[in-house]
Amino acid sequence: MDDSARHLPPHRLRVRYAETDQMGVAHHAAYLPWLEEARIVALGQLGFAYRHCEEQGLFMPVHALEISYRRPLRFDDEVEIRTWIAALGRTRLCFTSTLHRDDDLIAEAVVRVAATDTGGRICRLPEALLTAIAC
Amino acid sequence: MDDSARHLPPHRLRVRYAETDQMGVAHHAAYLPWLEEARIVALGQLGFAYRHCEEQGLFMPVHALEISYRRPLRFDDEVEIRTWIAALGRTRLCFTSTLHRDDDLIAEAVVRVAATDTGGRICRLPEALLTAIAC
Amino acid sequence: MDDSARHLPPHRLRVRYAETDQMGVAHHAAYLPWLEEARIVALGQLGFAYRHCEEQGLFMPVHALEISYRRPLRFDDEVEIRTWIAALGRTRLCFTSTLHRDDDLIAEAVVRVAATDTGGRICRLPEALLTAIAC
Amino acid sequence: MDDSARHLPPHRLRVRYAETDQMGVAHHAAYLPWLEEARIVALGQLGFAYRHCEEQGLFMPVHALEISYRRPLRFDDEVEIRTWIAALGRTRLCFTSTLHRDDDLIAEAVVRVAATDTGGRICRLPEALLTAIAC
Repeated sequence: MDDSARHLPPHRLRVRYAETDQMGVAHHAAYLPWLEEARIVALGQLGFAYRHCEEQGLFMPVHALEISYRRPLRFDDEVEIRTWIAALGRTRLCFTSTLHRDDDLIAEAVVRVAATDTGGRICRLPEALLTAIAC
Repeated sequence: MDDSARHLPPHRLRVRYAETDQMGVAHHAAYLPWLEEARIVALGQLGFAYRHCEEQGLFMPVHALEISYRRPLRFDDEVEIRTWIAALGRTRLCFTSTLHRDDDLIAEAVVRVAATDTGGRICRLPEALLTAIAC
Repeated sequence: MDDSARHLPPHRLRVRYAETDQMGVAHHAAYLPWLEEARIVALGQLGFAYRHCEEQGLFMPVHALEISYRRPLRFDDEVEIRTWIAALGRTRLCFTSTLHRDDDLIAEAVVRVAATDTGGRICRLPEALLTAIAC
Repeated sequence: MDDSARHLPPHRLRVRYAETDQMGVAHHAAYLPWLEEARIVALGQLGFAYRHCEEQGLFMPVHALEISYRRPLRFDDEVEIRTWIAALGRTRLCFTSTLHRDDDLIAEAVVRVAATDTGGRICRLPEALLTAIAC
């Protein structure tokens, strides 16, 4: 974990029925929208409404992710997602998350996003966001 | 079925693993993207690429749908979707579909879409589409 | 609305980014898992944990649904789902829901579920559930 | 790439409308069910129907994945998924995939699955599968 990573308050959600598969557990693809929701809440806690961000022409597409699934989740399980956020230079953010059910580590993930403009070109993260993360 | 409904060639697909749920069958929400895929293929067979349609500022959001699930589908089942298309006046299309696995009727659906402009206002369907359906 | 329908406390959620489509609104298929979540919470409020229900071999698959989409929802919108529940005879439940964003009616839906055993055969709803709904 | 990796025939699919998000591209979570579909087709080409595999009590949950997104995909784009499969010891498989649209590299992914029994315990891959991969 980068020294400058900001640890943010945890985000909680419950596994939806539609997110299970015939193995009887949450499908591995379901974790990505959860991580995205946790990132968006995390940015909000730093004072950045991602909703307004896109309205102003700044996008943050995912360009890489890694995830390790340690234990399965079942329907209706409550998951806690703990997220750290770090800037990688002036154009990228790296989110490291761990997912927990009570005391069990469920999964670990690293998601890298890049700031882009409406044309899909890499651009600088807003100065205020860089400042907020660095604090 | 409206007399002027056009019956189009069937569309086939297989149930994805991610589309199953812990009941061991395809989740009921999975059918909607299948029906959408079948509608888009159906419009293409009438000579309308929905992709270009949106690029030119014409959208066709779903404003109502009904679906009856007769028999469950399982992972890897091959489904055939048979679709009829009819114009309802000059601004709306009605798609009636039946889903089949071999000789079994799996589900029946009616999906109503409206033509809208980029601002979300109801607008006229392209004349050429109305003509194609009426033929 | 059936006289015997039970009106339950509303359920709230936010539109996830992954639930939007290229029209810039929540995709029409995303509403089905929301309605399902609202139903499961509603059953819980009547004292039935659907999770345990399935563990004991009672399933409640959706066998029909109707939905009308009145206004689009956008990313991060907060939606309130108000649900009424009624038994239809001794084997089926009917859930009627309306979706709201502040004072706007967003959508209306009717979802019919049937009680089935592990073999997929229609079976009776638990007496305690029938009693709870009738109260 | 492991020397013993088997290169399998490519799998093709089209981006569904429901798989797009409000950025106007395929959502990053949509790639996981595509990769899963490609793995299942790949196993089928080696003579293993994953459908029957689960029916006989052998499961292959994903325990880790990495993916790099190089270029966005749009609605209706045709994607080709090229997959290599390798056994890692006697209990795990590693699938390496690249996604292509015409001559463009769209994404690269590594997905690791483990063989488990119905109780979720790691178990040996079927001998016939190991032999087929080694050939």
